[in-house]
Amino acid sequence: MATMNVVSSPNNETKGGCTRACQYLKSLPKSVKDNVVNFTLEAKKLGQDDPRKIYHALKVGFAITVVSLFYYFQALYNGFGVSAMWAVITVVVVFEFTVGATLGKGLNRMISTCVAGFLGVVAHYLADLSGETGEPILLALFGFIVASILTFMRFFPKLKAKYDYGLMIFILTFALVAVSGYRDDEVIKIAQQRLATILIGSCIAMLICILISPVWTGAELHNLIASNMEKLGNFLEGFGSEYMTTKDEKSKEEKSFRQQYKSVLGTKSTEETMANFAFWEPSHGKFKFRHPWKQYLKIGALIRKCAYSIDALNNYLNPDILQMQTPEEIEEMMREACKKLSNELGKVPKEAAIGLKKMRKTSTPKTQLAETKEAAKELKRLLQDTSVWEKSNLLDVLPAVTVASILIDIVDCVESITEAVHELASMADFKTMDNEIVCPEKELSQIVVVGDVTDIDTHVPDHQKVTTSSAESETKTSH
Amino acid sequence: MATMNVVSSPNNETKGGCTRACQYLKSLPKSVKDNVVNFTLEAKKLGQDDPRKIYHALKVGFAITVVSLFYYFQALYNGFGVSAMWAVITVVVVFEFTVGATLGKGLNRMISTCVAGFLGVVAHYLADLSGETGEPILLALFGFIVASILTFMRFFPKLKAKYDYGLMIFILTFALVAVSGYRDDEVIKIAQQRLATILIGSCIAMLICILISPVWTGAELHNLIASNMEKLGNFLEGFGSEYMTTKDEKSKEEKSFRQQYKSVLGTKSTEETMANFAFWEPSHGKFKFRHPWKQYLKIGALIRKCAYSIDALNNYLNPDILQMQTPEEIEEMMREACKKLSNELGKVPKEAAIGLKKMRKTSTPKTQLAETKEAAKELKRLLQDTSVWEKSNLLDVLPAVTVASILIDIVDCVESITEAVHELASMADFKTMDNEIVCPEKELSQIVVVGDVTDIDTHVPDHQKVTTSSAESETKTSH
Repeated sequence: MATMNVVSSPNNETKGGCTRACQYLKSLPKSVKDNVVNFTLEAKKLGQDDPRKIYHALKVGFAITVVSLFYYFQALYNGFGVSAMWAVITVVVVFEFTVGATLGKGLNRMISTCVAGFLGVVAHYLADLSGETGEPILLALFGFIVASILTFMRFFPKLKAKYDYGLMIFILTFALVAVSGYRDDEVIKIAQQRLATILIGSCIAMLICILISPVWTGAELHNLIASNMEKLGNFLEGFGSEYMTTKDEKSKEEKSFRQQYKSVLGTKSTEETMANFAFWEPSHGKFKFRHPWKQYLKIGALIRKCAYSIDALNNYLNPDILQMQTPEEIEEMMREACKKLSNELGKVPKEAAIGLKKMRKTSTPKTQLAETKEAAKELKRLLQDTSVWEKSNLLDVLPAVTVASILIDIVDCVESITEAVHELASMADFKTMDNEIVCPEKELSQIVVVGDVTDIDTHVPDHQKVTTSSAESETKTSH
Repeated sequence: MATMNVVSSPNNETKGGCTRACQYLKSLPKSVKDNVVNFTLEAKKLGQDDPRKIYHALKVGFAITVVSLFYYFQALYNGFGVSAMWAVITVVVVFEFTVGATLGKGLNRMISTCVAGFLGVVAHYLADLSGETGEPILLALFGFIVASILTFMRFFPKLKAKYDYGLMIFILTFALVAVSGYRDDEVIKIAQQRLATILIGSCIAMLICILISPVWTGAELHNLIASNMEKLGNFLEGFGSEYMTTKDEKSKEEKSFRQQYKSVLGTKSTEETMANFAFWEPSHGKFKFRHPWKQYLKIGALIRKCAYSIDALNNYLNPDILQMQTPEEIEEMMREACKKLSNELGKVPKEAAIGLKKMRKTSTPKTQLAETKEAAKELKRLLQDTSVWEKSNLLDVLPAVTVASILIDIVDCVESITEAVHELASMADFKTMDNEIVCPEKELSQIVVVGDVTDIDTHVPDHQKVTTSSAESETKTSH
């Protein structure tokens, strides 16, 4: 705040440097106070928005207190000595907000330390064979080669996604064991102690993270995707009610839907990171160990694709564009048809989100989709009616026509989202919704899917096979 | 590969487990060989695409070799003892691909270690005063409080962006110094040694990173933004040449532009991370220390906004949609007008990208923008011509009309990108393009900006002031 004032008032420049310094010092207590107040307010807001963040902070504090016991109890200290600090470091470094991230880091750290420690000892003994002059040269060479190769491997996209941390720890441990082994002849003891303390630290971090109010990345990803679908639905419904209304009709509360969907546009990297973390998580709640997390990425991509179209629609809620220079009768007809389609469209992702949240198979989105397609047909019929349009020139009705066109395109988008959610329900063996008549898969899709839909039933198993097998092969490489 | 075969051939299930195991073992050498071959090919491709990744790997190997000298030379080892391993760890952990990331981590680590080490010593002495029983209890309490508060602070978005690593190292160092100090009475020595070795490690990493073929995040961000603008331009030009051509007219090489722009859609988080890293970089090449990196984020957001519209356009290159059921004369006229506008539109971001790459102020994009607006007017005139359209129904011409509408919307998008690049040129004091007649800023904008543009000259300084002052206040908090 103080900086802003100094910059924006050019009068200050005429005064001497001393006066300005005095002013700065005078305003310092106020700006410090402002910063403290702002900080407190922000902290309060963060804690209220997500109390799990407070629990996480306390969990980390608790984990560090637990691991400190190594130092306070003589018996434990005697076993490990200075190496006990590795346990403290491991807890601080490994403990993340979500279980998936903590497990990913912990397992990476443990496995890497184990393998690299072993290779470090081997390298040490190999170097030992070459005599006193050759030893440091050979060790330096080994360190150089291992560090270079593994650093380069960190650039491989697949390795980077899941094992980046492990590769770094590998370099670290190898360098420490091989290099420090040159001085300290108890090289095996060093490797053993480092491994043992890192195992203890990782286990403490992972156990506390899982046992005390855990935050599961998988569940977070699941909820994120469901809420993103809801946001799409909210926008489309909101668009339906606000489109072509005059300014005074709009209430301010309704506007939030115009901001909500924007967060959907940029979630790609978040979703990918979450899917990678979820990969490490054991079975929790309704999610099994090999839950098809990759399918969420597919749904996420389709949601974003839809959000791009919605972003184009959002431009047409601009009041300047809204003032259509069309005969009122056309405006009235278009408004009704677009409103109806938009409202119907909004219900589809919302219904799909409800099914996803409950983790149930449901045919409601498909039934809803059929109704949406009816609304789209109506709109198309209106556009086809030459008698309506020949009175007006095309430039005047351009905004209305574009909105109609984009809405019609969104029908396909929304349909592909519904299909992807349906695929997920099959892949993850969701149960059928309680309040629905249970009917076989085949019949279900025959009943509700209307029009030019690609055959879902032949499509699903193929895709499923590929995803499952690639997930399997990845699980194998990780162990 | 082997996994895939097993999954997809159900015949295997009828054979005994032993036979399958034998088959698996038989196929093992082949699959190992395949993996090695794939790995080598991928490594080769990675290295060819960006040889700097190979140099980076060699740099890390070199840095670790340099830091190992601490162990090989008796004199250096005697000074630090076991603590010398901190230098090795620091090099491995701090050394990142770009200078900005390395400096950010290195400075965070050094400053945090310094402050936390000091506080750790203070905590140790405070705890010492409370007698033998009170000491471990007080130390555990301090550890718990510091770890909890700082872990919570890591959730603050502003702190997370630039100081996340520093906060983690703070917890780490405080815990180590305060806790290990309980056993080892040379607590000040521990703190000093840790600080000295971390300073040495960080400096080695930062120096090698900067001095040997450095990769500057700032320059990378600069090039990313310029190349993203080029991709927009390529798409629009490509769209112009390919729109409404029949299938056999399309050459396969032209299609790449339809994939290129997709990478632009999801770069938000990459750009933000890069701007945060660039913040740490000193003056390099044509970039000064306080280069307006935040303006790049603004340009990036505008480019993405434009890319969303382009994504909608891309759907209309679909051959199914292309078959317009319109009278040929309309098709011909629309095709020409849309092609012209799209081609002219494509040149604007490309010209802006050329100026940005050369880091020169240029009026070419604005001149080009004026021509684009002429093309847009022509298209609008065509849409307004009732005589053309009354023969056809609106549904049949819907795709063509939507394309026209989106293209007209993109004109505004592209204009805002040009303005933002112009702002950047003013903020960073780019020189005027060599081959242009040097004329004062005011005249320039009066000459080239045609039509309903908001006044750029009054707008720029306001924005500039805000961005610069906020960047300044952030620079202050970091020191």
